[in-house]
Amino acid sequence: MFNPIDHPHRRFNPLTGQWVLVSPHRAKRPWQGQVEKTAPDDRPAHDPDCFLCAGNTRVNGEINPDYKGTFVFTNDFAALMADTPDSPHSADPLFQCESARGTSRVICFSPDHSKTLPELPVPAIRQVIDTWCEQVTDLAKEYLWVQVFENKGAAMGCSNPHPHGQIWANNFLPNELAREELTQKQWLAEQGAPMLLQYAQKEQQSGERTVVETEHWIAVVPYWAAWPFETLLLPKTHVRRLTELNDAQKQDLALALKKLTSRYDNLFECSFPYSMGWHGAPYQEGDVEHWQLHAHFYPPLLRSATVRKFMVGYEMLAEAQRDLTPEQAAERLRAVSDIHYKEQA
Amino acid sequence: MFNPIDHPHRRFNPLTGQWVLVSPHRAKRPWQGQVEKTAPDDRPAHDPDCFLCAGNTRVNGEINPDYKGTFVFTNDFAALMADTPDSPHSADPLFQCESARGTSRVICFSPDHSKTLPELPVPAIRQVIDTWCEQVTDLAKEYLWVQVFENKGAAMGCSNPHPHGQIWANNFLPNELAREELTQKQWLAEQGAPMLLQYAQKEQQSGERTVVETEHWIAVVPYWAAWPFETLLLPKTHVRRLTELNDAQKQDLALALKKLTSRYDNLFECSFPYSMGWHGAPYQEGDVEHWQLHAHFYPPLLRSATVRKFMVGYEMLAEAQRDLTPEQAAERLRAVSDIHYKEQA
Ligand SMILES: O=P(O)(O)O[C@H]1O[C@H](CO)[C@@H](O)[C@H](O)[C@H]1O
Ligand SMILES: O=P(O)(O)O[C@H]1O[C@H](CO)[C@@H](O)[C@H](O)[C@H]1O
Repeated sequence: MFNPIDHPHRRFNPLTGQWVLVSPHRAKRPWQGQVEKTAPDDRPAHDPDCFLCAGNTRVNGEINPDYKGTFVFTNDFAALMADTPDSPHSADPLFQCESARGTSRVICFSPDHSKTLPELPVPAIRQVIDTWCEQVTDLAKEYLWVQVFENKGAAMGCSNPHPHGQIWANNFLPNELAREELTQKQWLAEQGAPMLLQYAQKEQQSGERTVVETEHWIAVVPYWAAWPFETLLLPKTHVRRLTELNDAQKQDLALALKKLTSRYDNLFECSFPYSMGWHGAPYQEGDVEHWQLHAHFYPPLLRSATVRKFMVGYEMLAEAQRDLTPEQAAERLRAVSDIHYKEQA
Repeated sequence: MFNPIDHPHRRFNPLTGQWVLVSPHRAKRPWQGQVEKTAPDDRPAHDPDCFLCAGNTRVNGEINPDYKGTFVFTNDFAALMADTPDSPHSADPLFQCESARGTSRVICFSPDHSKTLPELPVPAIRQVIDTWCEQVTDLAKEYLWVQVFENKGAAMGCSNPHPHGQIWANNFLPNELAREELTQKQWLAEQGAPMLLQYAQKEQQSGERTVVETEHWIAVVPYWAAWPFETLLLPKTHVRRLTELNDAQKQDLALALKKLTSRYDNLFECSFPYSMGWHGAPYQEGDVEHWQLHAHFYPPLLRSATVRKFMVGYEMLAEAQRDLTPEQAAERLRAVSDIHYKEQA
């Protein structure tokens, strides 16, 4: 008889319209491939060579202020510029090009070079949330889409361990958002409620994939997770975008983020690498009722602080594949404490 | 005035329906992040600890034969099994699951542990091609889709430097193929010719993005490439799948593969990591005229043998982004020799 813990199967992600191949029996495979370096755990609170620390000079010669909380500046090597001229019309459907406008900013989460998000106190995390909301409010005046995200750890291409994230604003709706726009719109029309609001309610009832639950938020390993310990963080009520969060929801979000990222670090007792970011309604006129705010966490580690999942070969050419079930992943994240291992007595 | 070498823009991939953000001015960014290890270049022709070398014992106790050319066996830790029972029907659209059947095989390209694909003589590469075709013919009797691919290098999750690739067969059509099925079908209906046949012809005429051209094949950095030195390898006539290749096309493919992978290795004088694989018409009844056989090469290196592009953060959450134009990448690959640096006099 079919058993999801023993038998390969596919699960469907209704948000992306993509399937994921689950091969739970494969977790036993020995690993002889590349291992990740773990970040040294004894960083100073201020590093004179770090271009994000307070008072230091950046590559372009600018000097960082003596900031105390968060600090935002325009990326010195932004992937987008505000003043790109229009591209000529592309007549050939094989060679379609359009010019892209936008900006990229860096957000330092704290002046303390030695800390990462889970190690910051809840009020400092609340400040990060407030900064996200302020930045989005500001950039949404000019741009259709504002992507708030964090790359954490060398395994995720992060070149600096100083706690920081990024915000890229675009005059276009990027692929992933265009996809979620379509799937959520169709869902609301067919099912009568926003997809991810329905989903949060069902996960809350089941508890099987829940990792963290607070008063206003729930984080689950989604039924269709691709990355081994991927999570989806959702508000419990209908919130369409970051800028709609009320004070209680923001305060509680700081707690939920602290707990979720502490569980991540506790899993392998290391600074857990990930890319995370917020999705919500784009900043356009018109109906956005189908949108539900959510954060995706995509962490690469699979078995230990040094052995990651590689999304290569079959994954790039055919379909994402995972080696443990989402339920198993959630169970493992629930089995560790929600107090960070460095903060345990 | 708009200039694709200076101005951020988006290009459209008609095969996936996705856009890619091109930020060519960003290539100047300094890199302080993770660096890749390069593979040691002095491997023995036979390694007693390698589980792919001839005569050695694998983890499951089986002994590899004393093979001379290629050697195929079923993966000891296959992600798919032939006998998975059917899963129960999923009634809830939020929790869709289906059981997956298939098999995974490993293909050793050569008994010589010290060589990689570009270092094999053309007749040995021809043998690899023949093995791919035989395997696909065999597996297509039972499975809807057969994915032939190679993960090369530690950066691409390859745990063993012995020259080898993989074949995963599925009773379902994986995401990427389902997408290409749709886009190509629609293209043929609207444009009257297979998309990638038209594309190969236009690229042949322009030459701007061509990396290798032989009698029957052309390899280009596609107009919509996401990875820095991504290439698309195409036959010049209408070929729907690997098993349709005639002798002359196969012989010439060995030459094209030798040249393309040699250019890759020559770019940074290292064994160039990549994931590559073949896409073509699935093994189903019915019309597959819209399909054109092609191989995708997805190599991660960006600036040197040790600095790669990370597809993280913005890329995972929003849209793929690249730091040099496809035309610049093609020019750099054309600027190096098509004779492998180790084989140059
Ligand atoms: O089977 P291998 O080569 O050990 O494993 C590698 O290729 C597979 C197929 O692309 C991936 O699923 C694995 O993550 C990767 O490490
Ligand atoms: O801007 P960073 O942090 O140096 O760069 C990192 O994040 C970017 C946005 O996700 C990616 O495009 C880069 O590949 C990655 O290295």
